[in-house]
Amino acid sequence: MAGQINFILEADKLKTVTRNTLLADGSRFENAAEHSWHVALAAVVLFDSAPGQGMDLSRIVNMLLVHDLVEIDAGDLLCYHTDQVPAQKEKERKAAERIFNLLPDGRGELLRQLWQEFEAFETPEARFANAVDRLQPLLQAMRTEGQTWRQHRIRKDQVIERMRPIRAALPYLWEYVLEMIEDAVKKGYLIDEEESKASRKDKK
Amino acid sequence: MAGQINFILEADKLKTVTRNTLLADGSRFENAAEHSWHVALAAVVLFDSAPGQGMDLSRIVNMLLVHDLVEIDAGDLLCYHTDQVPAQKEKERKAAERIFNLLPDGRGELLRQLWQEFEAFETPEARFANAVDRLQPLLQAMRTEGQTWRQHRIRKDQVIERMRPIRAALPYLWEYVLEMIEDAVKKGYLIDEEESKASRKDKK
Repeated sequence: MAGQINFILEADKLKTVTRNTLLADGSRFENAAEHSWHVALAAVVLFDSAPGQGMDLSRIVNMLLVHDLVEIDAGDLLCYHTDQVPAQKEKERKAAERIFNLLPDGRGELLRQLWQEFEAFETPEARFANAVDRLQPLLQAMRTEGQTWRQHRIRKDQVIERMRPIRAALPYLWEYVLEMIEDAVKKGYLIDEEESKASRKDKK
Repeated sequence: MAGQINFILEADKLKTVTRNTLLADGSRFENAAEHSWHVALAAVVLFDSAPGQGMDLSRIVNMLLVHDLVEIDAGDLLCYHTDQVPAQKEKERKAAERIFNLLPDGRGELLRQLWQEFEAFETPEARFANAVDRLQPLLQAMRTEGQTWRQHRIRKDQVIERMRPIRAALPYLWEYVLEMIEDAVKKGYLIDEEESKASRKDKK
């Protein structure tokens, strides 16, 4: 019992982990706890439309509930800073060891497995969960004039690459995602690599 | 599809609905979105210890994901302001009509039913979900020296009444809950009705 209570109180800290995504109203950056809620809810909403109805929605939702817990220790990394990913993964591995071990054996192990499944990106459930985890920040980025993208000078091809899991898991949304990205380029939220290459050539 | 996207963006607003519970570190009040995540996660953690293993954890978690969505329109009411409950319920009923209707028929109806099941407090799953929804703020209140209780001059008997669903749904935690409440009285976070009656008598 003490382990469960400690874990629940420890989890509270995720509410203070700030992400790079603004709320849709632009008022502040969102935190990893409310983000986890949002994607779990979105998974329930989008599940009916997913191909492959053999999937276990419950495992998808539980994965999304735990997927960011390691950020209590490791913090949030902007997903486009790919050079920092290996160091981040190592921090997250250590965090998982500490945090999931707060729970009694069976339950801690179950949660650790859910986290690993999400990270491994292999099961249909993990692929669906990851797709939802990528769609939600895209929606909020579009609503907030791509502020984070502009600040970090993110390119269109980076976002397309980041969103790719949506293509297989939520195929009926893929065209819409590509339209949003094109719109973002048009509005100057994202850099178009081809165009910027051409403009570099022009300067030479 | 448009309905799903609209609903997901509408749900984002729950992150701006402030509750009367402080984070465990006392840094700020929590919002209803991160609270919803916290109780859904706590349900997964505590489920193994619940009596009546025939319950459907997935329905409990989904109930907790949607249980506060109506607060986007209705706002959060301090649970001890019981005189305001009927007006609040009416606001929530209207909010449910608007918010769940953003979704295509089947999915909106499913979510509305989950919310109603939570509110009706009749199924074992709803009772368990409500018990977890009451335990989590208690833990944070204890960590923050009962600031909200002291501010609103809450009595011990009100908190015991509020926590009662824990007794049936999580019986092994009930003694611990009562100990926390006694401790809160001892530390001056809560008013002891009997003692304050006695002191009123003394003054006469």
